Amino acid sequence: MKIPALTPLAALLALATIASAQTTKPPRDQALIDDLVTANHILASEGILDGYGHVSVRDPANSNHYFLSRSLAPGLVTAADIIEYDLDSNPLGDTRTGYRERFIHGEIYRARPDVMAVVHDHSPSVIPFSVSSVPLRAVSHMAAFIGEGVPVFEIRDVDGMTDMLVSSPKRGRALATVLGNHPAALMRGHGAAVVGESVKVAVGRAIYLDLNAKVQEQAILLGGKVTYFEPEEAKKTAPQDGFERAWDVWKRKVTAK
Amino acid sequence: MKIPALTPLAALLALATIASAQTTKPPRDQALIDDLVTANHILASEGILDGYGHVSVRDPANSNHYFLSRSLAPGLVTAADIIEYDLDSNPLGDTRTGYRERFIHGEIYRARPDVMAVVHDHSPSVIPFSVSSVPLRAVSHMAAFIGEGVPVFEIRDVDGMTDMLVSSPKRGRALATVLGNHPAALMRGHGAAVVGESVKVAVGRAIYLDLNAKVQEQAILLGGKVTYFEPEEAKKTAPQDGFERAWDVWKRKVTAK
Amino acid sequence: MKIPALTPLAALLALATIASAQTTKPPRDQALIDDLVTANHILASEGILDGYGHVSVRDPANSNHYFLSRSLAPGLVTAADIIEYDLDSNPLGDTRTGYRERFIHGEIYRARPDVMAVVHDHSPSVIPFSVSSVPLRAVSHMAAFIGEGVPVFEIRDVDGMTDMLVSSPKRGRALATVLGNHPAALMRGHGAAVVGESVKVAVGRAIYLDLNAKVQEQAILLGGKVTYFEPEEAKKTAPQDGFERAWDVWKRKVTAK
Amino acid sequence: MKIPALTPLAALLALATIASAQTTKPPRDQALIDDLVTANHILASEGILDGYGHVSVRDPANSNHYFLSRSLAPGLVTAADIIEYDLDSNPLGDTRTGYRERFIHGEIYRARPDVMAVVHDHSPSVIPFSVSSVPLRAVSHMAAFIGEGVPVFEIRDVDGMTDMLVSSPKRGRALATVLGNHPAALMRGHGAAVVGESVKVAVGRAIYLDLNAKVQEQAILLGGKVTYFEPEEAKKTAPQDGFERAWDVWKRKVTAK
Repeated sequence: MKIPALTPLAALLALATIASAQTTKPPRDQALIDDLVTANHILASEGILDGYGHVSVRDPANSNHYFLSRSLAPGLVTAADIIEYDLDSNPLGDTRTGYRERFIHGEIYRARPDVMAVVHDHSPSVIPFSVSSVPLRAVSHMAAFIGEGVPVFEIRDVDGMTDMLVSSPKRGRALATVLGNHPAALMRGHGAAVVGESVKVAVGRAIYLDLNAKVQEQAILLGGKVTYFEPEEAKKTAPQDGFERAWDVWKRKVTAK
Repeated sequence: MKIPALTPLAALLALATIASAQTTKPPRDQALIDDLVTANHILASEGILDGYGHVSVRDPANSNHYFLSRSLAPGLVTAADIIEYDLDSNPLGDTRTGYRERFIHGEIYRARPDVMAVVHDHSPSVIPFSVSSVPLRAVSHMAAFIGEGVPVFEIRDVDGMTDMLVSSPKRGRALATVLGNHPAALMRGHGAAVVGESVKVAVGRAIYLDLNAKVQEQAILLGGKVTYFEPEEAKKTAPQDGFERAWDVWKRKVTAK
Repeated sequence: MKIPALTPLAALLALATIASAQTTKPPRDQALIDDLVTANHILASEGILDGYGHVSVRDPANSNHYFLSRSLAPGLVTAADIIEYDLDSNPLGDTRTGYRERFIHGEIYRARPDVMAVVHDHSPSVIPFSVSSVPLRAVSHMAAFIGEGVPVFEIRDVDGMTDMLVSSPKRGRALATVLGNHPAALMRGHGAAVVGESVKVAVGRAIYLDLNAKVQEQAILLGGKVTYFEPEEAKKTAPQDGFERAWDVWKRKVTAK
Repeated sequence: MKIPALTPLAALLALATIASAQTTKPPRDQALIDDLVTANHILASEGILDGYGHVSVRDPANSNHYFLSRSLAPGLVTAADIIEYDLDSNPLGDTRTGYRERFIHGEIYRARPDVMAVVHDHSPSVIPFSVSSVPLRAVSHMAAFIGEGVPVFEIRDVDGMTDMLVSSPKRGRALATVLGNHPAALMRGHGAAVVGESVKVAVGRAIYLDLNAKVQEQAILLGGKVTYFEPEEAKKTAPQDGFERAWDVWKRKVTAK
């Protein structure tokens, strides 16, 4: 008979869930982890992430560590799913399966001390620019952060014919090198890596990068002359609030459900 | 017989409605503020405003004052967030942070005595026309109000390389000058300012300006000859109801949630 | 004091509502009226109608009468809002405000004895074809009903420079003439009139006309050769079920809310 | 202490779940049928199926049988609607009306022993490529499974001028022949047939085929050079998880309603 055999398992699972919730996070980090969970849900809700892609945050108390969900669709991530990684993208005391492309995060954090959060997405409006010789450029003031252009990472330059995944330290480093000091890099036939000085900034940039791509595409298709941002103009047009105002309404949408 | 049984209930409901309206604020302003709050929510719900942009209404009892939310995402605005401003865009007895671009509203109200409401948006379908040499023109009878064209405000003409924000009286006046007697002006690389003789008209115009932009873009892309509205035709095709009928269903969508 | 003065009015309104619900419709018509209300909600839910446009059904018991809502956004229509009209589009014993363009319905019913339902919409994907010299043609088998083409009604040919509204018997007749024996006609800079042998067919055609327009536009933009339906092929590809299967799921969407 | 208090509840929940699973049908098939029902709902929810189209699964216990809903909109399908068919697409002990195009499923299962699930859809972004001379090609790594191209089925080659429906064994066989060893075939002016080694893979491929079509169209329209996947690259870029991660979040969307 199966039922008695399974009951202890169910009880154990319940115990494990409670224990894990009670023992993992000290109160200090909780706000950071909560924001990271919200970031996952916002990016899913706004159509930037679907079943794939991910978002991470660097540990402000230990700049050699970062937080990232276990392998899971972003829309389903909870605080209990967050794993702590070192910059080699090795998990700390956690045996659950991680994202194969976590090296995107580890290697960017290593190369860019200013970066506190990283989004990797397959944003549908951005991918066309990743496979086209036409460059993505700022046409909307909400995306003026790309005023110095968006480099494109071609994985063929690193490893030739591949499975397209940034699934090794070598590929992660190559992507970080292409990213340089930019706020975002496109990944040919794949998506983008977007960074920021906070979770909110990285999320806001990922969302407005997608919107700018839509707008630029429509502007080009009209067939007339397109006025892009001048570099000086783009520099001055920094988002005035780190996307705080937008974060509030994006968050409401995912918490009101 | 059902009717006598229901009559007292109907009477009670009527009493309750009147009582609630009488106890909160003077009846005159409350309806105006409620409409302004609803306008914020409608513009968010219809995709015209996201975390940014704003909508205001002139005080009909004092044409030198207008109402506008404190700095907040439109989808989150409540009656308690509304601030009263004078035409210099100084708040009246309110110390909360205001929108940096409130001068768009103040300067348009100063220049245009006929205008009772102003929307400033970053409407995604409209921005392509703000950066293209191809002008936005009326192709849908719901947007016939732009039959005399939509001027484009180039902030470079006012202040050279800027942060793109209409964050000073000078820039607000320059925008109002470009707007002239039109119902809307595009703002290059930024969005639009849309005006009307009521909140409902300004909201309706903002929504149908966006729709007309989508339709015109698709019409142009088909590659054939496009028939635009003749000026006389556009003049005659004024919205027959001040967007009242549409307002009712847009409002239902935001109140049913 | 205001409250006592208003109470009798509220009571009268309640009485009027109940009385109107009790005296207007015999049970026989109720299924037809319910379908018409559902049609209003489906067309709103599927994005074919917004605050404007309308859908009507001919009275099967009296082919000289048709049913159409009073002037109201389709998404808000209830059974109590339906007015009975004769073919001159005069209401029968109803003093409420009607749609100004109800002549679209009356004149099509007069000219086309086979038509039992009419949709007038401002469908966004269809309007580009109404202002372009590029004709709308069948590319999807779900819209094969337009295999013989879709005529375009140019109101300038009837009344020169107008307010674009089919708000007179003369304009309604001219539209019906352009429609001829087709299932749909485009109205330049305005929208479409779509007809069918039942409410479900008219609704289904309106929805798939919009979808076909989207698909054809994308097919044209690809820049290659496009294969359209041959007339014979289109004739054979009649919808197999009068859109019954689709109606069921569209209806579920509007009743599940 | 909370843990002992919760354990009995967890045990009860586990008991309830097991009991419910045991009383309805044999456990082996129930999971398969449940996944098939979920697949119907996911494809409706993600906009791949509307009132039409269908998804089937081969019986793993009898490779000469497959499961498919009776004729019903996919969004409305429940376990009770599923019919068992043989490879001639004859129902087994079921007299309810079946889909007229069930031969798509039966003939593909006959020709392709590796295929365990089939989706037939009218995906709006894919149809343009079905009528255009421009071929659908992989631009997104999520659709690298089409790296060897997507054949187009022209029903005129089989039966000349038709009603476009694959409603006979002959047409089903012709479609299966065009499909060959590919993961998908387009059907001119109609839609697509997409196959996989599991329900989840067929569903995932149908969704990402649609997304790739959108992205490729936008990439082409930009007017520059487009970099497509190299065949070797496409082969290596197999979806790493059989779309399991995406399935979980798609499923949550349809079960949370």
